[in-house]
Amino acid sequence: MATRAKQIDAALDAAVPLQYPEVINEAMRYSLLAGGKRVRPALCLAACELVGGTADAALPTALALEMIHTMSLIHDDLPSMDNDDFRRGKPTNHKVFGEEVAILAGDALLALSFEYIARETPKSVPAERTLRVVVEVGKAVGAEGLVAGQVVDIKSEGQEGIGIDTLQYIHHHKTAALLEAAVVSGALLGGAGEDDIERLREYSRSIGLAFQVVDDILDITATTEELGKTAGKDLAVAKATYPSLVGLERSREIADELIESAKGQLVTYDKLKAAPLIALAEYIRSRKN
Amino acid sequence: MATRAKQIDAALDAAVPLQYPEVINEAMRYSLLAGGKRVRPALCLAACELVGGTADAALPTALALEMIHTMSLIHDDLPSMDNDDFRRGKPTNHKVFGEEVAILAGDALLALSFEYIARETPKSVPAERTLRVVVEVGKAVGAEGLVAGQVVDIKSEGQEGIGIDTLQYIHHHKTAALLEAAVVSGALLGGAGEDDIERLREYSRSIGLAFQVVDDILDITATTEELGKTAGKDLAVAKATYPSLVGLERSREIADELIESAKGQLVTYDKLKAAPLIALAEYIRSRKN
Repeated sequence: MATRAKQIDAALDAAVPLQYPEVINEAMRYSLLAGGKRVRPALCLAACELVGGTADAALPTALALEMIHTMSLIHDDLPSMDNDDFRRGKPTNHKVFGEEVAILAGDALLALSFEYIARETPKSVPAERTLRVVVEVGKAVGAEGLVAGQVVDIKSEGQEGIGIDTLQYIHHHKTAALLEAAVVSGALLGGAGEDDIERLREYSRSIGLAFQVVDDILDITATTEELGKTAGKDLAVAKATYPSLVGLERSREIADELIESAKGQLVTYDKLKAAPLIALAEYIRSRKN
Repeated sequence: MATRAKQIDAALDAAVPLQYPEVINEAMRYSLLAGGKRVRPALCLAACELVGGTADAALPTALALEMIHTMSLIHDDLPSMDNDDFRRGKPTNHKVFGEEVAILAGDALLALSFEYIARETPKSVPAERTLRVVVEVGKAVGAEGLVAGQVVDIKSEGQEGIGIDTLQYIHHHKTAALLEAAVVSGALLGGAGEDDIERLREYSRSIGLAFQVVDDILDITATTEELGKTAGKDLAVAKATYPSLVGLERSREIADELIESAKGQLVTYDKLKAAPLIALAEYIRSRKN
């Protein structure tokens, strides 16, 4: 995973050159190259290879997913949203470049992500498949994906009586939707059949939900230093979280159950080829930040 | 043009249904259905028909262009950007829904625009062409398009010694780039050859620049009521504009020259088929808001 992350970093570096007007490209690069774990690209590439494709077919989409993830972090951190000052241990984008540039950097990353998929996906992938990837990714971002999750999240903050249904809706849309798009896009680009796609969709839904449950747990159990972002924030703003609704112990059990269920979707595949997706599922359960 | 605008309005209405979470879809619809002139969709459809295509091939892209245009208006109006309270005679999006929802509504419209092109373009259009449209549109929005123009615009405000080069850069990227994408995309979807595309690219660059020159002129000569947005705003923030740099009379001449040059690109086409694009060029010169 560390090797993959380095490849992804180098490719992202090349995808956003530092050209005029420099300030916007600097802002995009500041957050894009801040050294995340590159989980979404790794999922996309692993799914492509699982079904028999080569990594180069999925690489442009893998990068696009990281651009979109970065956009969502930049916009979520804004003063009018979650108002966060730190992200991945560094000042947030608007703290460095100002709110107006941070908003525009997010917009530019979002536009570039789709352009990049359409422009850079190798011609060996049938254009119909690439279009389907654009649809899959677009749906994961907009008013049926990331944005929907963020809106419901913001509107739920500080409200009494947020139920488990709303919590799951938020998690599914804020986190799981893009992880799902990563896995399904990778599979599509690798030439997957509909059966593969449905199995991998189930896998990604489980790890997606687990990802957010673990996030909620870490917000309580980890320090700000470990997280690289402000810890205890959910509690401070009375946010609905798994630990606040079902307790810490049950939250850990739920995360375990979800990861086991995800791995269960991979049993029909060659063990060697499934290893990266199994490792990614394990990583999501055990990560510390 | 009025008939076309009504068709576009009805199709946009259907493209963004009022589903859960309602607030985000309401916010998207509020600005999307605020009754603009639909110049970009009209250009896209007219270019498609000029080269022998049918309107249904270009309709999804025409709608997507209006979604993107709307996104850029919502984000440009934000307090940290141009800080505008009125747009098309109504309170701006963030005045009604709050800054956080306005930012997200823009994000969702941008994501939807690409998804919509990929999902809704008829299968009769070769998928390779549709992918090329995604690239063309993406480039017109991101750090080489709209966003670049807005960044340079913001950074130039109130500065002394903004030259005509910077002004043209801003105009080309903030306005002309998306008009160009509209015309070129329409042509691509209609099956245009490379010669058609280059001629129509020239046409669109001229009307794009003229569009912004007329905008600058109207900011001085029209009232807030006529414009539906705050008049005299460029002057108030010491913005570089054509009238401020070359005077009102020369600005009008420049607009005339650009429109004539645009029409000159259409002389080789059938007069009847070229009529809509000629009318759109004339409209851009003579519009009052």
